Amino acid sequence: MNDDVFPAALREMGRTARLAARSLAGLRRAEKDLALGAMYRWLAATRESVLSANAEDIADAKRAGSSPTVIDRLRLDDLRFDEMLVSLTVIQQLPDPIGEIVSERRRPNGLLIQRRRVPIGVIAIIYESRPNVTVDAAALCLKSGNAVILRGGSEALQTNRIIHICLANALGDTGLPTEAVQFVSTVDREAVGQLLDGLDGAVDLVIPRGGSDLVERVRREARVPVLGHLQGNCHVYVDASADRANAEAIVLNSKLRRTGVCGAAETLLIDRDAPEDLARSVIGLLLERGCEVRGDADLRRLDPRIGSATEDDWRREYLAPIIAAARVRGVGGAIEHIARYSSGHTESIVAEDLVAVERFLSEVDSAIVLHNASTQFADGVEFGMGGEIGIATGRLHARGPVGLEELTTYKYVVRGTGQTRG
Amino acid sequence: MNDDVFPAALREMGRTARLAARSLAGLRRAEKDLALGAMYRWLAATRESVLSANAEDIADAKRAGSSPTVIDRLRLDDLRFDEMLVSLTVIQQLPDPIGEIVSERRRPNGLLIQRRRVPIGVIAIIYESRPNVTVDAAALCLKSGNAVILRGGSEALQTNRIIHICLANALGDTGLPTEAVQFVSTVDREAVGQLLDGLDGAVDLVIPRGGSDLVERVRREARVPVLGHLQGNCHVYVDASADRANAEAIVLNSKLRRTGVCGAAETLLIDRDAPEDLARSVIGLLLERGCEVRGDADLRRLDPRIGSATEDDWRREYLAPIIAAARVRGVGGAIEHIARYSSGHTESIVAEDLVAVERFLSEVDSAIVLHNASTQFADGVEFGMGGEIGIATGRLHARGPVGLEELTTYKYVVRGTGQTRG
Repeated sequence: MNDDVFPAALREMGRTARLAARSLAGLRRAEKDLALGAMYRWLAATRESVLSANAEDIADAKRAGSSPTVIDRLRLDDLRFDEMLVSLTVIQQLPDPIGEIVSERRRPNGLLIQRRRVPIGVIAIIYESRPNVTVDAAALCLKSGNAVILRGGSEALQTNRIIHICLANALGDTGLPTEAVQFVSTVDREAVGQLLDGLDGAVDLVIPRGGSDLVERVRREARVPVLGHLQGNCHVYVDASADRANAEAIVLNSKLRRTGVCGAAETLLIDRDAPEDLARSVIGLLLERGCEVRGDADLRRLDPRIGSATEDDWRREYLAPIIAAARVRGVGGAIEHIARYSSGHTESIVAEDLVAVERFLSEVDSAIVLHNASTQFADGVEFGMGGEIGIATGRLHARGPVGLEELTTYKYVVRGTGQTRG
Repeated sequence: MNDDVFPAALREMGRTARLAARSLAGLRRAEKDLALGAMYRWLAATRESVLSANAEDIADAKRAGSSPTVIDRLRLDDLRFDEMLVSLTVIQQLPDPIGEIVSERRRPNGLLIQRRRVPIGVIAIIYESRPNVTVDAAALCLKSGNAVILRGGSEALQTNRIIHICLANALGDTGLPTEAVQFVSTVDREAVGQLLDGLDGAVDLVIPRGGSDLVERVRREARVPVLGHLQGNCHVYVDASADRANAEAIVLNSKLRRTGVCGAAETLLIDRDAPEDLARSVIGLLLERGCEVRGDADLRRLDPRIGSATEDDWRREYLAPIIAAARVRGVGGAIEHIARYSSGHTESIVAEDLVAVERFLSEVDSAIVLHNASTQFADGVEFGMGGEIGIATGRLHARGPVGLEELTTYKYVVRGTGQTRG
């Protein structure tokens, strides 16, 4: 595509998204839910075409030598298609966050100061292979009154294009601006740069969802606010006071329930004062379930099947049946290790000693800290938010699961009767 | 200063600020309030030295040909010094935002999910001539559990240095890390670039306070989240339904109470359907109080003293006794004008027609929208926050006055009894 035409097309996308955002901000819940229902019907009626576009994407990806992980993420089958539809129904049933008076105070001079929840505006979402993100992101943004510009992975292009047509048709059918959900259908990597630059102020927020290359690029180039869904280098710490059954169940579930999700545990920390047989049994169970364990010298003494961890392993997000493991000096040692290596996503302590528990929950500075529960609960649905667009690992605006409320901001509405300031 | 030494010194500042932030996060209220009290006593005892350092800064600024506005902002007299001390007392008396459980829900599986308020971490504040910012920013950051790196304007360097010594001494005296409040005492503009780059991940948030040059530079260079205290191009819209006494009082107060503050009105919009004598009297009062009025053709007919507004005037933040003025087609015309030209800070409608009022309050997308009240109420103290570090005009994390709560974030604390995910 011509270099001059291409940025102009994207800028136009930004301009029309901004206009659409202004209409969306004032919509009533019923209008948005009607459009979500239409999206459901359009997608359901187009299932065969979406699945065959997806089959073509998969064939292309295989020819291009994509990894099995990429192919798996890219794949839509009937089950995953149904999940996409269910997600639309769930989001339709969630309460509308917009317009809520979050807080209110009356000042001595009679001014009534209200904080009212409003949409963020125009959100750009840059993601990789999973096509369900196209539907989830569009639905969450619509329900929260935001216009969205979607830029999916090139390997899912044909699938995403047809999904986007369904979504736009649904908007049009229900009288909403079709520019409320836009899709960047070029594979040019320059498009990402344009979005990160904010399209002349049209983009209020960028949400990246993807691997470390994308994340690194966003960090380097973004000129607009970013809600970073970054790495999940999650830790489970087993304290000397841990209940053995809890420790075994939580470590296994945290690591192995699904290994490809950002809430999967990547490092196991075991208290030096924990009984050797507790450490041995937890690690033994991991090994027996096919998980590679890379331990420090102290742990390697326990079991010859434990491999050797290097400095690099403490920082890795494996997203695979591999876990790094170290012994640490009590809860303080665990806190230090996590402060040094964690990506600030999710960490869990397994312990019965409540002093150690409260110290861990207070001093570990990650988006989510858990006591006696699996790290795999790091998920908006599990948190009761109904849906999520990712887990934010930054510190501003939102941390942890980003659901409908996290896609909003607020403004102050001040009601007076002629007050002037002295 | 040597180029290699200088960035290394700043990185070290970032590293020690991060360590200090970890200690601050766990402090109880009493410990923080004790340090605020010590700051008060150190400053009160050092008044003469601070004022004489300030006199030197002012003499230098005059020799360098600084504008009267800069000199005025730079000046500390006894009254302003007292205000600085009062501000410490006020912040000491504010409730501690840290540790508060903002929300809590029990999930069907028994997990208790709490959102707990925590500090942001390390905040860099880049500001210009007002030395009181040094005290206010340090006190607000300390009370909210954040470490702060202050980079004040070069013209206030001697004043800020001695104020910083007082603050650091107070921290040391009360057993808190002196690195919790750091001051960049070089005037090298490279320091700003280093801070905007985040000092190797040590800076969680940058808050700029200053003119458009600084703001533009921050927008261009920042690699870390920014809470932008940008321009205040504030509007007052007088509807045809306005009460005349309200219109006169609110317009005058919005523009002229203080002209150098960001909440001062810069553009007056008058409904075309408003009676001519209402428009004439409001503008007449402005002119009589010495305010220059730059109007559109429609308004210039009303009074020969009205100057001519150009396109540029609709975007200007005068911070001076000058106001741009236009007639607009009802509340819809006002909303359009504001959408096009406003900086998103504060806008007020003067009206008795409640349909017009609600439309204005809903559709004007600025941080603060007011009905029948002066734009000069755009202030954290007037909002009941006790103190503020500025007015955020961005859309993420915080909008409007940035007080203690806005200097915090949250984390999820999840309490289980052995739950694993199915």
